[in-house]
Amino acid sequence: MIEAKLDIVENQNKKPKPEGDDLPFGQVFTDHMFTMEYTREKGWFQPQIVPYEPITLDPAAMIFHYGQSVFEGLKAYLNSEGDIQLFRPEENLKRMNRSNGRMSIPPISEELVINYLKQLLLLEKEWIPNEEGRSLYIRPFVIATEANLAVAPSQSYKFMIILSPVGSYYPEGIHPVSIQVEEHFTRAVRGGTGTAKTGGNYCGGYKAQEKAADRGHAQVMWLDGVHKKYIEEVGSMNVFFKINGQIITPELNDSILEGVTRKSIIELLKHWNIDVIERKISMEELLQAYEDGQLEEAFGAGTAAVVSPIGELSWQDETMIINGRQTGDLTKFLYNTITGIQTGKLPDTFNWTETVKEL
Amino acid sequence: MIEAKLDIVENQNKKPKPEGDDLPFGQVFTDHMFTMEYTREKGWFQPQIVPYEPITLDPAAMIFHYGQSVFEGLKAYLNSEGDIQLFRPEENLKRMNRSNGRMSIPPISEELVINYLKQLLLLEKEWIPNEEGRSLYIRPFVIATEANLAVAPSQSYKFMIILSPVGSYYPEGIHPVSIQVEEHFTRAVRGGTGTAKTGGNYCGGYKAQEKAADRGHAQVMWLDGVHKKYIEEVGSMNVFFKINGQIITPELNDSILEGVTRKSIIELLKHWNIDVIERKISMEELLQAYEDGQLEEAFGAGTAAVVSPIGELSWQDETMIINGRQTGDLTKFLYNTITGIQTGKLPDTFNWTETVKEL
Repeated sequence: MIEAKLDIVENQNKKPKPEGDDLPFGQVFTDHMFTMEYTREKGWFQPQIVPYEPITLDPAAMIFHYGQSVFEGLKAYLNSEGDIQLFRPEENLKRMNRSNGRMSIPPISEELVINYLKQLLLLEKEWIPNEEGRSLYIRPFVIATEANLAVAPSQSYKFMIILSPVGSYYPEGIHPVSIQVEEHFTRAVRGGTGTAKTGGNYCGGYKAQEKAADRGHAQVMWLDGVHKKYIEEVGSMNVFFKINGQIITPELNDSILEGVTRKSIIELLKHWNIDVIERKISMEELLQAYEDGQLEEAFGAGTAAVVSPIGELSWQDETMIINGRQTGDLTKFLYNTITGIQTGKLPDTFNWTETVKEL
Repeated sequence: MIEAKLDIVENQNKKPKPEGDDLPFGQVFTDHMFTMEYTREKGWFQPQIVPYEPITLDPAAMIFHYGQSVFEGLKAYLNSEGDIQLFRPEENLKRMNRSNGRMSIPPISEELVINYLKQLLLLEKEWIPNEEGRSLYIRPFVIATEANLAVAPSQSYKFMIILSPVGSYYPEGIHPVSIQVEEHFTRAVRGGTGTAKTGGNYCGGYKAQEKAADRGHAQVMWLDGVHKKYIEEVGSMNVFFKINGQIITPELNDSILEGVTRKSIIELLKHWNIDVIERKISMEELLQAYEDGQLEEAFGAGTAAVVSPIGELSWQDETMIINGRQTGDLTKFLYNTITGIQTGKLPDTFNWTETVKEL
């Protein structure tokens, strides 16, 4: 039994739920949010659910100057019984604490946060979309709030959870996208912050993303920062390749973010006795496999998109057309399986989901 | 003649100025601040000086999630005539726009911002400390304000200037400090954001800084992210070595921040016909120079500390004691010259300072 009592201030001015087909990612927010404060003296304190509203910070708050922050992303669904389902929330909270460790932010009780999140979700249940492909995106995040221009870890923080009903992350849905391998810009390097889900890793990629978009590509593929040779991630997702029947994904190192979807895919493949291996894979090797006719499928994997097939991959002067720009069978099967488990349409063999009823 | 009209809302509730010896860096702020907004439709608009007060942002504001931000740091002094003096402010504003470019933030008119800054300084003139070693630290910064969880450049921004009366950045003053060369953690790598003054570059270094502090060192020295071999920066400063009479500083690359103090030191040394060279320098080379008795001085250079001598440098199992842990003659001369020019005590041969009287 954990101490999870929190104050709830109910929003008296509820917003209309979004209607119609157009539900862009992360722009509509629910009526309430969870907030909690940290000071060195008190630790984490004052957990509360309050109306979704602007927050007020000193202009010298460290988040504005030195970027000390972490975030997470997960989704809630309604199953066929009308109950709320979460997908491996403990994995996200564990990762949040790993990110906290890297960014010198104090750890947060994972058990408590899951409990707080459940209370928030129960209050906001009507906001969870019921339609195919939609879900309630959950964004926990921590920001440094101390008003101090010294370059040092903040002595105070704010932890929040906000909720956003979302459609598919990629408006084009499960259709394969075109990817540009980035040769100049670097997402992360060993010894850097790449394994942490922290703001600086994301804004640093905008320039490369703009360059790729200018050339008609949907996303960039990131290479390692040392050799500019080994594949690391695609956009803000992990990446998988099916080569001659074997599934290959870059092995975790000191710069790749450990995705929950990545982990789930590996576990599914192993369960199905499909040959899957985590190892270094270079662009040279990938191109060779392509030229040998062995690059059968490629896809990104992440919470927002779940699985996102790669139809075209440009690297230097080469353009690889993968599986005739069609979504591969394994890619589609993984997408259907994971979203099926997430939404309760398929049996949860792995005990990955958590149903949220009354506490 | 530039259009620099702005609204001024005077603070009716002025704070007492700090008294006594204890003036920690960046914790006390003046009565007013400058703010300006950006939207894609309007560009930069609504320049105003308002009372220093908390700012209000949506919890989904992009600064909290993806860290899109830049900042600058410069100082104002009072000269012997009692006029405000700025040191090369145009260099800081040029760098801010280079940082903006890297971080996909729209550029800001340097001329206008300097004009706004002058108006703010004239209003806050009483806050500029008169005492030796003290100054008014100026912190311009830009943050992404759009409420949107999409991983993409913000469509709206806030630009602010806040002011903080400061003592010396290092409480121990000009005394040499002990530095640990960081072997594991990386500040920046080619293709990353190291050349931009953006938050993520700073919080990413806290872990290394904590490690160095645990071992009794004041700061870390950063090596390049690719080879972990070449010296890049020290703490959040550029670094210089005097080896056998020659001054060496790491050449600018795609990961070192181009410091205004660094640039000024190089120009001063050239003016004095002292042999100065910008080139790659490895830790092996530095250790060899030390063992040969040729490593005569070493110091960091940045706006906050101006010049900070290195008395001890630890790398792997080696500890180098530099100049018997005393501030070297050249280091001291550079410190005195630059602070002399900044405060108006020495003639401004290079036309580096700008005196701010009535506009």
